[in-house]
Order: sequence, then structure tokens, then C-alpha cells
Amino acid sequence: MPSADADQAATDRRFMAAALRYSRKHAGLTGTNPAVGTLIVRDDGNGPVIVGRGVTALGGRPHAEAEALADAGEKARGATAYVTLEPCAHHGRTPPCANALVAAGVTRVVGAANDPDPRVAGKGYSILRAAGIEVVERVMADEASDQLAGYLSRSVRMRPHVTLKLALSADGMIGRPGEGQIAITGPISRRQVHLMRAEADVIVVGINTALADDPELTVRLPGLESRSPVRLVLDRQARLSPQGRLARSAEAVPVYLAVGPEADPAHKAVLAAMGVKILATDTFEGRIALPELLEDLAAQGMMNVMVEGGAETARNLLADDMVDRIVIFQGSGRLGADGIAAPIDRDHIPAGFRLVREARFGDDSYAEWTRGF
Amino acid sequence: MPSADADQAATDRRFMAAALRYSRKHAGLTGTNPAVGTLIVRDDGNGPVIVGRGVTALGGRPHAEAEALADAGEKARGATAYVTLEPCAHHGRTPPCANALVAAGVTRVVGAANDPDPRVAGKGYSILRAAGIEVVERVMADEASDQLAGYLSRSVRMRPHVTLKLALSADGMIGRPGEGQIAITGPISRRQVHLMRAEADVIVVGINTALADDPELTVRLPGLESRSPVRLVLDRQARLSPQGRLARSAEAVPVYLAVGPEADPAHKAVLAAMGVKILATDTFEGRIALPELLEDLAAQGMMNVMVEGGAETARNLLADDMVDRIVIFQGSGRLGADGIAAPIDRDHIPAGFRLVREARFGDDSYAEWTRGF
Repeated sequence: MPSADADQAATDRRFMAAALRYSRKHAGLTGTNPAVGTLIVRDDGNGPVIVGRGVTALGGRPHAEAEALADAGEKARGATAYVTLEPCAHHGRTPPCANALVAAGVTRVVGAANDPDPRVAGKGYSILRAAGIEVVERVMADEASDQLAGYLSRSVRMRPHVTLKLALSADGMIGRPGEGQIAITGPISRRQVHLMRAEADVIVVGINTALADDPELTVRLPGLESRSPVRLVLDRQARLSPQGRLARSAEAVPVYLAVGPEADPAHKAVLAAMGVKILATDTFEGRIALPELLEDLAAQGMMNVMVEGGAETARNLLADDMVDRIVIFQGSGRLGADGIAAPIDRDHIPAGFRLVREARFGDDSYAEWTRGF
Repeated sequence: MPSADADQAATDRRFMAAALRYSRKHAGLTGTNPAVGTLIVRDDGNGPVIVGRGVTALGGRPHAEAEALADAGEKARGATAYVTLEPCAHHGRTPPCANALVAAGVTRVVGAANDPDPRVAGKGYSILRAAGIEVVERVMADEASDQLAGYLSRSVRMRPHVTLKLALSADGMIGRPGEGQIAITGPISRRQVHLMRAEADVIVVGINTALADDPELTVRLPGLESRSPVRLVLDRQARLSPQGRLARSAEAVPVYLAVGPEADPAHKAVLAAMGVKILATDTFEGRIALPELLEDLAAQGMMNVMVEGGAETARNLLADDMVDRIVIFQGSGRLGADGIAAPIDRDHIPAGFRLVREARFGDDSYAEWTRGF
């Protein structure tokens, strides 16, 4: 028979898994704040029951703990709070979440990821312990760190978390020269890609892909149309076409253009007048300096970058060691030897990455690799 | 006769003052990077001569040092560099400015403000000294810290620097009830206000001022029209009028609306469709939680906030201890005892502030108080 401790640990993992799933509700929608989840759980003798739930509100405030405590009301007294990130400890005008948990009479707090923000880092848990609350740290911490990777990356490394997404044919090609966008993967994979976009802060493509494919790079899923993130084109010489889908939709969904000093001022002005935001960036050896660009995006509060191509952009990011997650969708059709070879494939994943997920989406295969930082 | 050392110190102050003046060229236009200036000065026996100058480029990159070194070319070898902020030390794809100064053969570096960014903090100067370069720190450091206050505030306190600007009549009134915007100060003062706006990242007003005055809050100076910052309205209930100047100009110059959870969703949707960006904010005791709002603005990279009214907003910011600089323009006309009393006047500046500047602008007086942090 399992011990009471083992029972408790299993219960804690079960509710933390639920809190992590629930927190995804607002992934990509919480501005500069991390998308956190909180469940308030109490056991009045008939087993643990969820009496309050909260996620970081749209835009980032209020925080998840405040939402969950408001939801639970008086039932929070004597309950356990499951928080996917250490509760904040810094005073503004509203009380820090750690103090709010104390004030609400919670008697036990189970946390997943620790918060590296120097204003929190351990202080959140200290406030709880000082008030006599039992604290259990790092329950499902790896899963939480994976989900909060963007926030942790921005806080610790001052750059966003970068996901490189590739769609490959069965014979390892990403397209055919001169043919623009072609369907390599099926409808289920495409919906997955749109979901990934909805959880990102920025979608990045290189200018060659923007010109060849004329992509829109928005979220086109029923009900999620408003969740399109910023679209950013790496375009040293400002060659983006004013007639393309990206420029023409810039008023509706933001388009950023990372340009070098050699970009034509007149062309920049035309695009800027259409609503494209021009980002002056450093260049190095004839291309956009990606680490500096990513640092600037993090300074604007951006946490999650998704790179959608093309081959050159992917190669440059890998060469600069700027990729944290690799996602490969591989279709069942072949493009032939005259196709554009993928910059990377399942058999050539860089050292340090480990396979964390595999799936089938219809006829396509899905695989995902991450690395720590 | 002054000693050679005193001569050198006077020369250093003279060139640093010039570098500080030059750096203002791009104040408010360098995105999330501080607006820094660099002068490269050499003395070939006939006294020191400026051979290269640089300011942080529009958008924030390249940095001032790189611009100045490119401007100086070979003449940088053996020269002195005057930098208004410690040169950066962290590696991206382009070399850090400290290394670029070393590579260019500069033999002496005079710095003003030290950089509190943990990736720099002392490391920039260490790189220089390790390469045998003579370093003189903190020349005109107070002046540089004043000019870089926004950047330093964001780095050290994780909130922007806040300037409270007031226009007062001779009898200490800021307006008359129901009369909207009235001219309290003259044309020179108004141009000064527009210049201040151009150097800010955000202009803040309360909803009552937005409704009563219907202000535009843009920069309307010849040649500087494109330098209008974000306009932010504190509007807990989302009462901003869609017919007002702010909402109608939101597509041209960004308007942010800080709203509380009680804001009407339908009204928010109308404003959002006009291009107004809705910021969900915490509320506390029935009003927008200003410290949390300011923290979120800093997380988006914003460094300088200018508050233009009204009385309630000013009082709340002062009560929350969120004001770093107070600027009072006082006109010569009187509004009478039925006017709206100013929230603060020259005789009631809070403790800790000191008067740093006084001037006459036509018939108006100008005074400015700051405090350290």
C-alpha cells in the first residue's frame, strides 16, 4: 500500500498537471507577464475538490493567484493553492500574490517553477513560510519550465525563447524553387501550426520566404483569429513588397521589418506609411545580427519567438546557437531531388537537444526537441 | 597657473558636456536602448579636436560608440573616446562596444554614467582596462544620470522615470470647470511642452482630462511631427469617447487605454476596433494601480513617462510616490477663485525634491525639481 506521503505527492502532481493545462488558456495573451495558472483545492473529508481557479488575466493583470482567490472566496481558508510559478513578492499598489495567499488563509502552497525575477526569486516562498504556510516547491517543475520557457528565457538570458518550426516532405525537402507555398503537410498539421502561432509573441521569416511564398502568417482558426502575433521579417535591404500580403495586412496585424543600415530610405518610408514598423538592427558579416535583434525583442517584453523559415534563416539561427526548440512536421509526399533541401532533419538534430514529444497528425509525423538553458 | 591635471579635467568636462548635448539628438527615438553620445577626440600637438561623433542610432542600433568609431575611421587610433554611458560588454553577434573601442586603438576612455545593467555594470570598463586603456569614470556623472534617468530607472527600479508637468495660472489654478482647454501659458512654454513630449515614450492623462479637454497630446512642432510618443489614458471604466481626438487619431499615433476589470466589454471593443490598445490593469481602492501599470510599461521597454494631468491623476501619482521630476510652467494671467486648484505648486513641492532649473519663457516662469533614486 502506498504511504500517505506518496498519496499526497501523487495528488499534488495530479492537481499541478491540471493547473498547468488550465494556464495554457491564456498562453500568448498575457502581454509581458507569464501565463500562470492557480487552483485552490480543499479537502473537507471527502477528498480534494477544486474550489477556485485562475489564470493570468488577458493582458497580464490581475495575476492568476488573485483571480483564483476571488473565485474561491471564503473557501480559500484552510485550502491548498497550486501555483505553476512562484507567487510574486514585490509591492506595487496591490498586494503581492504571496501576501494575498496569506491574507486569504491558505494553509498549504504547492509550486511548480521557481521565479528567477530578482524581485521574487525565493522571496515569494519566504513570505509564505514566514506566515506559517507549508510550501512544497518544484512539483512538476520541468513541465512548468517547459511551458514558461519564454518567460524564464527573457528573465534569465534577456532573450526570448526561440522555436524553429519546419515542414518537411518525406524526402526531406521544404519546397521547390520558384513554386512558392506548396502543401507539404496535411490539415491537422496546419491547424497545429496555427495553434503554435497563437501562443507565440512573434512569428519570424526571412525576406526570401516572404517574397517567394507571400505568406500571411496569421492565426486562421475559428474563434482564434484575433490571436495573431506580431509578424517579423528579416529584411536587411528592406525588399519586402508593398503589394504582398504581409505589408497589406500591417494595419490589421502588426508587421515588423528588421532592416540594416543599407536599407533604401524611400522604400522604408513606403512600408512605414502602410503601418509596417521598421526596426533598425545591427548587421554582422552581411546579415541581420540575430542575437541583438532577439535581445531588443526581449527588451520590448517579447518572450516567445516562432521561426517559420526559410532554410537560410534556420541555418543562421542554428549557427548562432539561438534555437531552443525544434519542431518538425513531416508529410508523406515526396518533392523529388530538385526540391529545396531542409536545413535540418530528424537525423541531424544538434547536440544538446533531446526528443520530448512525438505524434501522428493524419499522414504526417510530428517530433519536438528541446534543450535546457 | 592650473596644473596639467586640472587642465585635463577641464578639457574632459568640456568634451563630455558636448557629448551629452549631442546625445540628445535622438532622445526619445532609440526604442528600448538609451540615447547615448560618443565623441572621439585626438590631440596631434595643436590641442584636442573632435574626429568622430556618434549617437545611438534611430531605433537603438547601432550603438553610439560604433557610430563614432565608424565616423572617425583610422583617426580613432591613439584618440580619447568620451562616452555618456559605460560601453556595453555583452556579446551578441556584433562585438560589444568595449571591445570595439579596444579594436579601434583608442588609448583613453572618459565615461559619464555607469551602466547598472548586470550584463555591463563595471565589465565594460574592465575590458578597456585589461587592454591597457586609461579609463576615467563618472565625469559629469550627475548630468548624464539626469539625462539617462529613464534608462537608469528602468534598469534599477524596473519602472519608468515619471515627469509630472503642470501649467498653472498666476493664482495657482490649472483650469476652470466646464471650460475645457484654456490657454494658461504662452507660445514659448507650449513649444517647450511639445519638445518634452518628443523626448518621452508615453504621455499620460486621466480620463477626466481626456473628456473635458479633448486633447490631442501629439508633438506639433515643425519637423518633429513624427516624434509623438504613445498617449495613455487612465480610464478604469473605459469611458473614452470614440468621437474624441485621441480615439480618432489612434491609427496614426498609438493610444493605450489602461482599464480595470469593470470596463464595459462592448465599449472596449468599439475603441479597440478604432486602433486603441486596451491594457488590462490591476485596480486598488477603486482606481488604476499605478505602480503595476508603470511596471508593465517598463517591461515593454518604456523608459520615460510624462504626465500631463489632471489634478486627480497628479495627486494619485504623488500619493503613490511615483513622481521623479516636477515641472511647473506658470503663466502671468489669473483664473480666479472659481478655478480648479492645482494639485501642487511651487510652495508645496514634496520633501526630497530639489530645484534644478529655473527659466523665463516670455511672460511665463519655468521651474523644475528632481530627486535621486
